[in-house]
Amino acid sequence: MTSILLTGFEPFDGETVNPSWQAVLRAQALWDGPEDVHIAEIPVDFEACDRALAEALDRFRPDLVIAVGQAGGRPGISLERVAINIDDARIPDNAGFQPVDAAIAPDGPAAYFSTLPIKACVEALGQAGIPASVSQTAGTYTCNHIFYRLMHTLQADRPDARGGFVHIPYAPGQAAGGDQPSMSVELATLALLAIVRTSLDATADVRAPGGALH
Amino acid sequence: MTSILLTGFEPFDGETVNPSWQAVLRAQALWDGPEDVHIAEIPVDFEACDRALAEALDRFRPDLVIAVGQAGGRPGISLERVAINIDDARIPDNAGFQPVDAAIAPDGPAAYFSTLPIKACVEALGQAGIPASVSQTAGTYTCNHIFYRLMHTLQADRPDARGGFVHIPYAPGQAAGGDQPSMSVELATLALLAIVRTSLDATADVRAPGGALH
Amino acid sequence: MTSILLTGFEPFDGETVNPSWQAVLRAQALWDGPEDVHIAEIPVDFEACDRALAEALDRFRPDLVIAVGQAGGRPGISLERVAINIDDARIPDNAGFQPVDAAIAPDGPAAYFSTLPIKACVEALGQAGIPASVSQTAGTYTCNHIFYRLMHTLQADRPDARGGFVHIPYAPGQAAGGDQPSMSVELATLALLAIVRTSLDATADVRAPGGALH
Amino acid sequence: MTSILLTGFEPFDGETVNPSWQAVLRAQALWDGPEDVHIAEIPVDFEACDRALAEALDRFRPDLVIAVGQAGGRPGISLERVAINIDDARIPDNAGFQPVDAAIAPDGPAAYFSTLPIKACVEALGQAGIPASVSQTAGTYTCNHIFYRLMHTLQADRPDARGGFVHIPYAPGQAAGGDQPSMSVELATLALLAIVRTSLDATADVRAPGGALH
Repeated sequence: MTSILLTGFEPFDGETVNPSWQAVLRAQALWDGPEDVHIAEIPVDFEACDRALAEALDRFRPDLVIAVGQAGGRPGISLERVAINIDDARIPDNAGFQPVDAAIAPDGPAAYFSTLPIKACVEALGQAGIPASVSQTAGTYTCNHIFYRLMHTLQADRPDARGGFVHIPYAPGQAAGGDQPSMSVELATLALLAIVRTSLDATADVRAPGGALH
Repeated sequence: MTSILLTGFEPFDGETVNPSWQAVLRAQALWDGPEDVHIAEIPVDFEACDRALAEALDRFRPDLVIAVGQAGGRPGISLERVAINIDDARIPDNAGFQPVDAAIAPDGPAAYFSTLPIKACVEALGQAGIPASVSQTAGTYTCNHIFYRLMHTLQADRPDARGGFVHIPYAPGQAAGGDQPSMSVELATLALLAIVRTSLDATADVRAPGGALH
Repeated sequence: MTSILLTGFEPFDGETVNPSWQAVLRAQALWDGPEDVHIAEIPVDFEACDRALAEALDRFRPDLVIAVGQAGGRPGISLERVAINIDDARIPDNAGFQPVDAAIAPDGPAAYFSTLPIKACVEALGQAGIPASVSQTAGTYTCNHIFYRLMHTLQADRPDARGGFVHIPYAPGQAAGGDQPSMSVELATLALLAIVRTSLDATADVRAPGGALH
Repeated sequence: MTSILLTGFEPFDGETVNPSWQAVLRAQALWDGPEDVHIAEIPVDFEACDRALAEALDRFRPDLVIAVGQAGGRPGISLERVAINIDDARIPDNAGFQPVDAAIAPDGPAAYFSTLPIKACVEALGQAGIPASVSQTAGTYTCNHIFYRLMHTLQADRPDARGGFVHIPYAPGQAAGGDQPSMSVELATLALLAIVRTSLDATADVRAPGGALH
């Protein structure tokens, strides 16, 4: 039986919700394929997040892992292309820790590319009328950290498994009172379901430009 | 019986839908108050829109009019503060007409302020978790035109009626493939329902800053 | 002898400089035409600014008045189209006063349009390689206030004089450490000189689209 | 004698100038230190750019290399943190070539980090009143390509040399007529001079947060 792991994050930066976890919960509930969809909530904590991820990988032994996080300020779904080997925290994590320019894995490579079919996912979301694009950076906070840790661990322990990271916008309630874009959790959930399905179906990624001039 | 008129626009600028009309349709269907909610679709045409508005005002004799339009690129609901007496079209309208710096009503005043309780509406939407703010400009295209024409006509013919204009973001399907923010039509519909309810209930607007530094 | 008045604002919102005053100072120093260019620094104070403006108008009896202010966050020069009869302060002024939804002139019209040739100015700046556009709102703070007061006073006391408002971006030093666009004071100064020259030369505005869809 | 190499790009994407080359030219002319500053103009061409870079490295045997490019739409100077091993061109290069998801160096690592003191440079620019920040992505076009190629070549051939990439905004003339931020070439030149000086002086980078949440 194919095993799928979706992870979301707990709230941070003064928020009371994190739409990544809300969308992951709903995606599990709505999944109607024969595959098993497992979920794990990851703390916004540079140390504890590694343990939470490791436990979920050990327990569920997934063939496909899609880690999801909140990207406040982005207008659409981001299929992240690359994780880099650096922690550089603009704000402290939920445990009060604020690493600056620290390697995630001192002996690891500078970066890992996503092994999801990110261009096929963007294409599928576009066909479904959901704003989405490839992103060239997942930042340098816990989202990039867990993405890098995931790819580093999969390469060492589960080289046949595929994995990647998806950023979703603020939920509307988070954007109320400000001037940031948002996306309903329902639409973000539909996006995750489409990304899982596309990732399971794609034998290779499609060839389509998805880069940035800078 | 209190009569309410909601107007939305037809699609323009190459779009196949206009979320303002979709939201107006749904708001009418979902309204559960004792008041009558009437609707009218307005053409994106500097000349024909005046006739469509006049006909709707004659037919429904509304006590409250909320005109709604699409503001592609804005992240939340805009309660428009002011309509100005100018047409200056960046692109031709659906009939191919592109007025530049033409007065809407040659003998009319330079501007009209909304008579909706716009601050109370922003407050109500914020409490409902819907991104919203006061906007200081409705542009110079057909949205501002119909807003100005509405206020000009109400002042002349129905001075006790209240009216105003609300801009809503792109629907997600319009933003797919680009980099613009969007809002689900469902959430925009909920916003319209809250704006109607607040406008009916408010005897005066609340005192809350809602301005812009520039 | 033709008399020209340029006004700039003092610093506000925690800034130590206001590029509008810096540019006005330099424009006066660099002006090489036969006309007299006078300048006045206006306080960011909803009450005192009226007195400062009135004194300058009395003293210099200008034929052309260009009021200039800082628009932090805008990327280019803004030729403001319209002043509206409302004070709605998002932050207190330098005297601690924060009016909300108060009319500037209780018996005044809802708005005044600029009597500068704003389209010709945008065209001239574009030819000079300076980013510029028409703006449909000058906000609801002291910039819009002085713009409205200027037009209200000119109409009553000096109906043959022309006037308007120009917003300029942050100076680079104000944007350092943040993520906002900026413009060198030198370039903003060149823009003011071109706007003065164009306003003196234009007998009528050019016909060119400069509106906004919303 | 310490040898420094600055590179800029030729114009692309329909532009007639590239401010990166203009600023590099001026920085060379204005440099007043004892070190030799050499310059090279790099074609916006995924194939020819490698040869141009290789020739400059062979000829000048630099101890410090700062490659500079144009980032249209960014408001300030970007100190790029990381180059990734991918070409993904949103538009064709000046030779009409448009690679999609192609490795720059098939046997190379996924990424290289800049070996410039990027945090110290941001700090120095901030003290000089020049908008600047660390950037987590140099895109996937020729800027990222030459950055990756530079670091790959330095590691192989000149492991003691340091190198990195700096993005600068549009020049004002490029932004005229649009709605993008810009920076005068004079200010960008001053920024390059400060970056060269800081890179020569710094024995280690400063510890300061410069990351992104996403």
